[in-house]
Amino acid sequence: MTVNGGPGPGLRRAVTAADEASVGELVQATGFFSAEEVGIARELVRGRLQFGAASGYEFVFAEAGERLAGYACWGRTEQTVCGWDVYWLAVDPRLQRGGIGTLLMRHVEAEIAAAGGGDIWLETAGRDLYAPTRAFYERLDYTLEARLRDYYAVGDDKLIYVKRLG
Amino acid sequence: MTVNGGPGPGLRRAVTAADEASVGELVQATGFFSAEEVGIARELVRGRLQFGAASGYEFVFAEAGERLAGYACWGRTEQTVCGWDVYWLAVDPRLQRGGIGTLLMRHVEAEIAAAGGGDIWLETAGRDLYAPTRAFYERLDYTLEARLRDYYAVGDDKLIYVKRLG
Repeated sequence: MTVNGGPGPGLRRAVTAADEASVGELVQATGFFSAEEVGIARELVRGRLQFGAASGYEFVFAEAGERLAGYACWGRTEQTVCGWDVYWLAVDPRLQRGGIGTLLMRHVEAEIAAAGGGDIWLETAGRDLYAPTRAFYERLDYTLEARLRDYYAVGDDKLIYVKRLG
Repeated sequence: MTVNGGPGPGLRRAVTAADEASVGELVQATGFFSAEEVGIARELVRGRLQFGAASGYEFVFAEAGERLAGYACWGRTEQTVCGWDVYWLAVDPRLQRGGIGTLLMRHVEAEIAAAGGGDIWLETAGRDLYAPTRAFYERLDYTLEARLRDYYAVGDDKLIYVKRLG
């Protein structure tokens, strides 16, 4: 599943046992996720370690020296012909605005395209806190497909974005 | 989690080892689900048997004599304050239009209300095949909240319905 023979500079595809803790710390450090969500992020790493590709979760990690700088997690959308989901994208807050998120997303998109994927779906939230997140995805040509009002909580909508590949 | 001391006439909450096969056969017999989806339906029964309530999946079964007449599967929606999802609802095609689906949904709604749930989410498809399904949910006061175009396949939208409890 690597593109052009490798995941690109500073990126790593293989998941290691240490990633569960690193991902948990990174996701928590962003300040965007609840304790429950941090738990889910860790759980997906554990699932991948336990079941490999059969887990349905693909990962790519960006590293700055020894440190985890960011990561993305994605997989095929069950029940669809050619849909894929980006489940997680997080970048160390000390390293944000440095292009790491874009690098990760470009890698994810290339992998999905190489696997014959057609649509890339991702979800984010409608609160002000997430305005930079929404702007980030819009810059990468994701478009808002649907809004589920008061989904997470009253006044906290879920937004569903999609990018239709070629 | 039972309401008024029991799940109602002809309904059973406890999941047994035999349910995995019965659910698979029932879901397949409806003609509404792909082989992959049948596999998912079975997997959720297995998850419940293995992990109990911690699986996040609740079940109710309707029985006609010894036979499985229909079932529903639901659970709390992760990351939300008071959302719940109805993951599966299926009725033996030979017994449809007999009120079993409504009986199951009423039970599910009562259980969710008793657990303090606020919103009930469910997904269905936009194809003509699903017109009776959509009409069924609309009769039960579910409203269309979002449409994901070409989600399952080109020309095959995903529809997201919600019912907001009190």
